[in-house]
Amino acid sequence: MRILFIGDVVGDQGMDMIQTYLPRLKRDLKPQATIVNGENATPVGRGISEAIYKALLSSGADVVTMGNHVWDNREIFDFIDSTKKLVRPANFPGRDVPGRGFTTLQVNQKKLGVINLQGRVFLPPLDDPFQVADRIVDELRQQTDMIFVDMHAEVTSEKRAMALYLSGRVTAVVGTHTHVQTNDGQILTGGTAFMTDAGMTGPDDGILGMKPEAVIGRFLDQRPARYEVATGPNKQLSGCIVDISDTTNQATAIKPILINRDHPYLN
Amino acid sequence: MRILFIGDVVGDQGMDMIQTYLPRLKRDLKPQATIVNGENATPVGRGISEAIYKALLSSGADVVTMGNHVWDNREIFDFIDSTKKLVRPANFPGRDVPGRGFTTLQVNQKKLGVINLQGRVFLPPLDDPFQVADRIVDELRQQTDMIFVDMHAEVTSEKRAMALYLSGRVTAVVGTHTHVQTNDGQILTGGTAFMTDAGMTGPDDGILGMKPEAVIGRFLDQRPARYEVATGPNKQLSGCIVDISDTTNQATAIKPILINRDHPYLN
Amino acid sequence: MRILFIGDVVGDQGMDMIQTYLPRLKRDLKPQATIVNGENATPVGRGISEAIYKALLSSGADVVTMGNHVWDNREIFDFIDSTKKLVRPANFPGRDVPGRGFTTLQVNQKKLGVINLQGRVFLPPLDDPFQVADRIVDELRQQTDMIFVDMHAEVTSEKRAMALYLSGRVTAVVGTHTHVQTNDGQILTGGTAFMTDAGMTGPDDGILGMKPEAVIGRFLDQRPARYEVATGPNKQLSGCIVDISDTTNQATAIKPILINRDHPYLN
Amino acid sequence: MRILFIGDVVGDQGMDMIQTYLPRLKRDLKPQATIVNGENATPVGRGISEAIYKALLSSGADVVTMGNHVWDNREIFDFIDSTKKLVRPANFPGRDVPGRGFTTLQVNQKKLGVINLQGRVFLPPLDDPFQVADRIVDELRQQTDMIFVDMHAEVTSEKRAMALYLSGRVTAVVGTHTHVQTNDGQILTGGTAFMTDAGMTGPDDGILGMKPEAVIGRFLDQRPARYEVATGPNKQLSGCIVDISDTTNQATAIKPILINRDHPYLN
Ligand SMILES: [Fe+2]
Ligand SMILES: [Fe+2]
Ligand SMILES: [Fe+2]
Ligand SMILES: [Fe+2]
Ligand SMILES: [Fe+2]
Ligand SMILES: [Fe+2]
Ligand SMILES: [Fe+2]
Ligand SMILES: [Fe+2]
Repeated sequence: MRILFIGDVVGDQGMDMIQTYLPRLKRDLKPQATIVNGENATPVGRGISEAIYKALLSSGADVVTMGNHVWDNREIFDFIDSTKKLVRPANFPGRDVPGRGFTTLQVNQKKLGVINLQGRVFLPPLDDPFQVADRIVDELRQQTDMIFVDMHAEVTSEKRAMALYLSGRVTAVVGTHTHVQTNDGQILTGGTAFMTDAGMTGPDDGILGMKPEAVIGRFLDQRPARYEVATGPNKQLSGCIVDISDTTNQATAIKPILINRDHPYLN
Repeated sequence: MRILFIGDVVGDQGMDMIQTYLPRLKRDLKPQATIVNGENATPVGRGISEAIYKALLSSGADVVTMGNHVWDNREIFDFIDSTKKLVRPANFPGRDVPGRGFTTLQVNQKKLGVINLQGRVFLPPLDDPFQVADRIVDELRQQTDMIFVDMHAEVTSEKRAMALYLSGRVTAVVGTHTHVQTNDGQILTGGTAFMTDAGMTGPDDGILGMKPEAVIGRFLDQRPARYEVATGPNKQLSGCIVDISDTTNQATAIKPILINRDHPYLN
Repeated sequence: MRILFIGDVVGDQGMDMIQTYLPRLKRDLKPQATIVNGENATPVGRGISEAIYKALLSSGADVVTMGNHVWDNREIFDFIDSTKKLVRPANFPGRDVPGRGFTTLQVNQKKLGVINLQGRVFLPPLDDPFQVADRIVDELRQQTDMIFVDMHAEVTSEKRAMALYLSGRVTAVVGTHTHVQTNDGQILTGGTAFMTDAGMTGPDDGILGMKPEAVIGRFLDQRPARYEVATGPNKQLSGCIVDISDTTNQATAIKPILINRDHPYLN
Repeated sequence: MRILFIGDVVGDQGMDMIQTYLPRLKRDLKPQATIVNGENATPVGRGISEAIYKALLSSGADVVTMGNHVWDNREIFDFIDSTKKLVRPANFPGRDVPGRGFTTLQVNQKKLGVINLQGRVFLPPLDDPFQVADRIVDELRQQTDMIFVDMHAEVTSEKRAMALYLSGRVTAVVGTHTHVQTNDGQILTGGTAFMTDAGMTGPDDGILGMKPEAVIGRFLDQRPARYEVATGPNKQLSGCIVDISDTTNQATAIKPILINRDHPYLN
């Protein structure tokens, strides 16, 4: 089995890259499951709407994961409970949290579990993602031993700690949130694929996908700034491919996907 | 001109990789200048000692840069003022900060300026690195237009903001501190090379180079933990190569260097 | 000389308390100078408008100080440069920061300097308030040795550190920002009055002056919440009185002012 | 019933104040229960030892509460499980956390529950103190409706949010950790006494009880500094008295206790 994962889709340019390249990637790489992080997919780069969510599915996503921006577009409350394919960080606290933190996907004769977790270092104090991961992985493993984790977190240490913690218990831990792809795809002991961050899908000339002037301006004067999705002709799509052995269900390879001006899509 | 930059050297394993591979890299890649981040180079992974500093120079480093761990080994106060080749973050505040925040290196007929800056997002409130960069770049550009910046910072946005801010004014901005190499080397407008993080040089099986048990344990129980440099057979060396046009003095290429079990050194 | 200082005025209820009690306090306590922190004085509890600013002056304020919310109501940019009596944190960085960080007030034959500073612990990395204080205090002391500092900061240690740092150089350091009055008014060595926080002027039944349901709700579910100024019948006014010797210009006493349901105004 | 609570005891000077004044306070104020926060009671101001713990008990404490420094003196692991009278923050995560997060105390015919909680704003991400409080309060209320909560937290909003959250379910919520007593003792709806911070018991001339030179020095140069407990002749004892109706078991009054040079003990 092969999983295609696409990192944080940002704004219209991100959706554009999805609509242009996701069908080609699926045609050429033939993944059996496609997972897309959509926490920044609205035109303003924060949260998701039902229309965008449906556009992601119709472009080829099987599951959409989220992150700290999950609730930023309040429209999500209207549809999150009506779908199995949208997964928000599982460790949001409290009773009756809208939506779900993990899901399963039927892939031929097999099942793939997909979990979304959010780190807590330099992010709000959600419930402990390690405890929550234990609980969900235990539950999912009664159905399947193929589990993909989108670990949405700021610091490298927390993402790698999660990957090592779950090593041998899940198939892949791939980080999101920093919007910059890391060059460290690797197979950990126990057949768990890991990459610290899958990178971002959206405007190439911004900072986190946002217009650089506002971001730099704020660093300079520390006054409130309105962040807007960057414009400009250059766009990127970032993600990774995880290959899984059909006999052991362990990951055998993880490879970065990167499409931008410097890395044109060649197929 | 070609610059070889090596990211945060951690502990004995990091020094081992330096001593084994830096001479080969210099022989094979023929950089005219070699810069090494040494903020974690002592055996305990924090700070630097005079012996380690000298070992870095004799292994081939022309300049050693630092970061937030610069003062962690108090031995540094004994020798930092006696050398031009050790550069600590230029934006440490106050009068009479020991050492220097930038230096120059004679490379044949040319001069290379080297600046070390530290970010402030999720790090202590040093002086504003953007203001400090303005001042130093202005000063250095009276001597040379080849300037290399080691931007030691936590978040991707602050590193990229610095790179875009200095774009066209310096030759390269390369990030350090997260200990994970990013896959985003690029040439910005104005001929400035940029990579969010050069990655780490040291133990391959740890977290930030430290033993995973203690790091994971602390995430689980939030109690004090003693972090020790990881052991185990696997080590890595991370960094990048920046190529500079001899006619324009602008960067023309930036390429990652990564040596580990999965990426053996082939020359 | 006697200075009356009123802590963070929040919303309509805060303005109500100002309009009701500030005239009485001035009549009964006879301060020669009245300083009011107005960073939360708009009806929504964030920033200041020209109308509110003028209402503070006409209620008896001689100088209005601010804090981290200074720029939250963008109307401030329209009038901040046209007045000497509005003081924002002096350590906002960059060139051409709108407004001023300190001012002077003529009080009979004497001059009173008023400085507003903002701390950096758990707040944005403005310029170093200690360095900035040094510079402004030096400048002001060429005109007067009576200087009042509103130190707007989160943690007790940074406020007390500033007070001890300026002890003997200024007349008073009074903290703001936590919206809770501290019980530690004291005269430091050198005749500097200090109180960690003057407290808040506004709704008594909220949290920081905001409706408790939203604040508690956010602690419980970590989802975005709309904070609104608390309603309800109970209101408070908080501040302090600083007495200064006319011969030495040193502070001789600092006493809390607190008016609320439990502490009715008796004069 | 009357409860005497003493805020964070710091170093030898704090222990000195306890040994000098706690017996007198008990003689004069006649509390039926005495609770002391001991998280800084060792000579270095961090953590607690068995000898110090026993000294607190023999000076008159019935229960000792802790805070974020609970594990700083590793000696605590040797005795914390052998006593019912030492209570550490109940929301430390993980299985098999040493010690206990709440206890009960027999007072004549009645029982008093004592809970220690730690906030998470600007502090490590322990388990959610609100959820944990719900669980423990439910459990304790099967035995007693007199419950005292030491809420160890940085910001005023989190402490007040906890007090309002538990209002009507516990007898008192008193904050600790900032080491500065607040002037806001009040009885909330439902008969719950609340004070944002009880203040500190220890050296009067320091910052948080530590030598000011090191703390100020660190603000100035952002380099590592060794914090030592302040010396000097002046000391303080801070805390509060909570009075509880014997018929309703609701709090009827909360009053600050403050003994220092400016507030000598008069009985
Ligand atoms: Fe994102
Ligand atoms: Fe995110
Ligand atoms: Fe490092
Ligand atoms: Fe670092
Ligand atoms: Fe305020
Ligand atoms: Fe504020
Ligand atoms: Fe404490
Ligand atoms: Fe504490």
